[in-house]
Amino acid sequence: MDFIQEAIKEAFNAMGKSTPNPPVGAIIVSKDNRIIGRGHTQSYGGNHAEIEAINNSNENLGGSTLYTTLEPCNILNNTPPCTDTIIKSKIKHVVIGAIDVNSDINGRGIKQLNENGITTELIKDNDKIEYTLESYNHFVIHKTPFVTLKLALSIDGKLATNSGDSKWISSEQSRNLVHKYRSDADVIITSVNTVIADNPRLNVRLENYTKNYQPRKIILDTNGRIPVDSQCLDSNTIVITSKMNKKVSDVLISKSVIIEKIPLNESGKLDLNYLPRILLKNNMINVLVECGSALSSELLKLNLLNKLLLFVSPKIIGGSKFIPFSNINSDKMNNVIYPKKVRNSQLDEDMLVKVWF
Amino acid sequence: MDFIQEAIKEAFNAMGKSTPNPPVGAIIVSKDNRIIGRGHTQSYGGNHAEIEAINNSNENLGGSTLYTTLEPCNILNNTPPCTDTIIKSKIKHVVIGAIDVNSDINGRGIKQLNENGITTELIKDNDKIEYTLESYNHFVIHKTPFVTLKLALSIDGKLATNSGDSKWISSEQSRNLVHKYRSDADVIITSVNTVIADNPRLNVRLENYTKNYQPRKIILDTNGRIPVDSQCLDSNTIVITSKMNKKVSDVLISKSVIIEKIPLNESGKLDLNYLPRILLKNNMINVLVECGSALSSELLKLNLLNKLLLFVSPKIIGGSKFIPFSNINSDKMNNVIYPKKVRNSQLDEDMLVKVWF
Repeated sequence: MDFIQEAIKEAFNAMGKSTPNPPVGAIIVSKDNRIIGRGHTQSYGGNHAEIEAINNSNENLGGSTLYTTLEPCNILNNTPPCTDTIIKSKIKHVVIGAIDVNSDINGRGIKQLNENGITTELIKDNDKIEYTLESYNHFVIHKTPFVTLKLALSIDGKLATNSGDSKWISSEQSRNLVHKYRSDADVIITSVNTVIADNPRLNVRLENYTKNYQPRKIILDTNGRIPVDSQCLDSNTIVITSKMNKKVSDVLISKSVIIEKIPLNESGKLDLNYLPRILLKNNMINVLVECGSALSSELLKLNLLNKLLLFVSPKIIGGSKFIPFSNINSDKMNNVIYPKKVRNSQLDEDMLVKVWF
Repeated sequence: MDFIQEAIKEAFNAMGKSTPNPPVGAIIVSKDNRIIGRGHTQSYGGNHAEIEAINNSNENLGGSTLYTTLEPCNILNNTPPCTDTIIKSKIKHVVIGAIDVNSDINGRGIKQLNENGITTELIKDNDKIEYTLESYNHFVIHKTPFVTLKLALSIDGKLATNSGDSKWISSEQSRNLVHKYRSDADVIITSVNTVIADNPRLNVRLENYTKNYQPRKIILDTNGRIPVDSQCLDSNTIVITSKMNKKVSDVLISKSVIIEKIPLNESGKLDLNYLPRILLKNNMINVLVECGSALSSELLKLNLLNKLLLFVSPKIIGGSKFIPFSNINSDKMNNVIYPKKVRNSQLDEDMLVKVWF
């Protein structure tokens, strides 16, 4: 059995709930190669993954190996340092998925373990571990949320037909994968236009979905146009607006929806420069945006996008009305945006192009 | 040495010149595994590949093996049947890249070889051989040219910035590959808009280019707007127009350019339903189109496209003015175009998406 894969599975269980703590998974393996403990980061203020794994074990941990997707912390921050508990537990060897980029830790956790006779081993270039940690790493370094925009495109770059029909551009496998990405996110953001057009539930609908919570949702709604019977409205929802009549806001509040007011920009739209602070205030770091062209252009213009997930379907839609980033003032080729990294993978039918800015 | 690869190299040497005969390559290998003859299909009326390989050998062919990318013909058609010459040559074994789809041949060539004591072997699923033969196969079955449209796109589906800048969307490697595709084609088609905007030479510029000819060119120019000093105008060029003033046509004729007049369609543009017959009249079957949005939409509308080569560059250009197939009346998702086959490959920087209709 590949124990680090088991630790990664646990890390995925933490995604969407542990923020601002990193979503970490941990596994304890006995001397005779049995998994004798497992755990993942709990909600903010709760236990870290290593402590969960230790607490969840009923066996003597003497001589065992701990697999953890992130370096154990050596600092007191709501919870005691994990390194202390690991040392006390008599765990002998620790396999670590990544160094913590937090400058208070950043190798000091490993050093403390080594100084106390625990051997350590660092796993390199594991894409899944990198994925589970990318929003945390970004936040620690930049103090801003990590925003991923998902788009479903035809091979000729269209988001919908000229009449606005987009059901379905991408394959069933792709749409399931979007639900998987939703389940990893702290929040899903969309525009009121999408809510009006599609009335999406914006929840995770997956067979064998084991998490007991649904992602939070933010609807960007400049003028309070949201239909009060929209399926996405519940206690998990924040509507960001600059103007909403009392009749609408009363219904929303009765549904436990939170309403956040922010100013308009020069174009009379929501000033999305205020978005990051609302996200951070709500412990939302891993952010998934699902929207159309106007909002995608605006986020790109304001440098608020960190990653794209482009589901490219092998269809030719044609037309010119629904295309991504249409409001970008592209002028000269030497001013276009060069992503930092692009990775393509072939799904059953569609292609998934991941773009990092 | 992989002898069939050597035969394929010869087939590539025939591309762009052999039409309407198939571009075939042939290699003869001696009993002691030396290449003792090689050849490819000559211009129409000239020798087929097998005969070239036999004629180009100075050795006794008794007991040798012939590698040919296409089944040897058993019919008299300008040249005598290749099978007869192979039988007389005492070649013992023939390795064949593909069965000829021509119903007069279609296995009969192989049968005749076998009946005369020559063993045969068929190569399966060789992408390069399929590529060299796809325009011929299409023509034999459908009696129409095989038209490939090349587009260079950004990852967000743009052909240029809003100001029309497109130099360069794709990488140097991609642009070299386009020259390779040009060198394989019987003709390159573009629109007068592209000629006016870019003044392209539309020739093959490749290091180590060994062919002693350049591809022919067709410029689609409804109203005779072509600048008479355009770089692409020479004896290899046909300008298709419906209206051209004498001053322009006189200059063109002085440069040995051929002018073809065709009627307008209801929209006052060239009626491209007349294009295939001009192509066939000029032995142009393997056709490469390099153009912008208007012409690409028109060709797609008229079902004149058989294949797309999309060079997708990992840049975000944004904007809305230069996008492919913008004039397609896309309405409902169940009316969109589903290609028959799509294949992606990663180049150094760009992705090449091949689409077959």
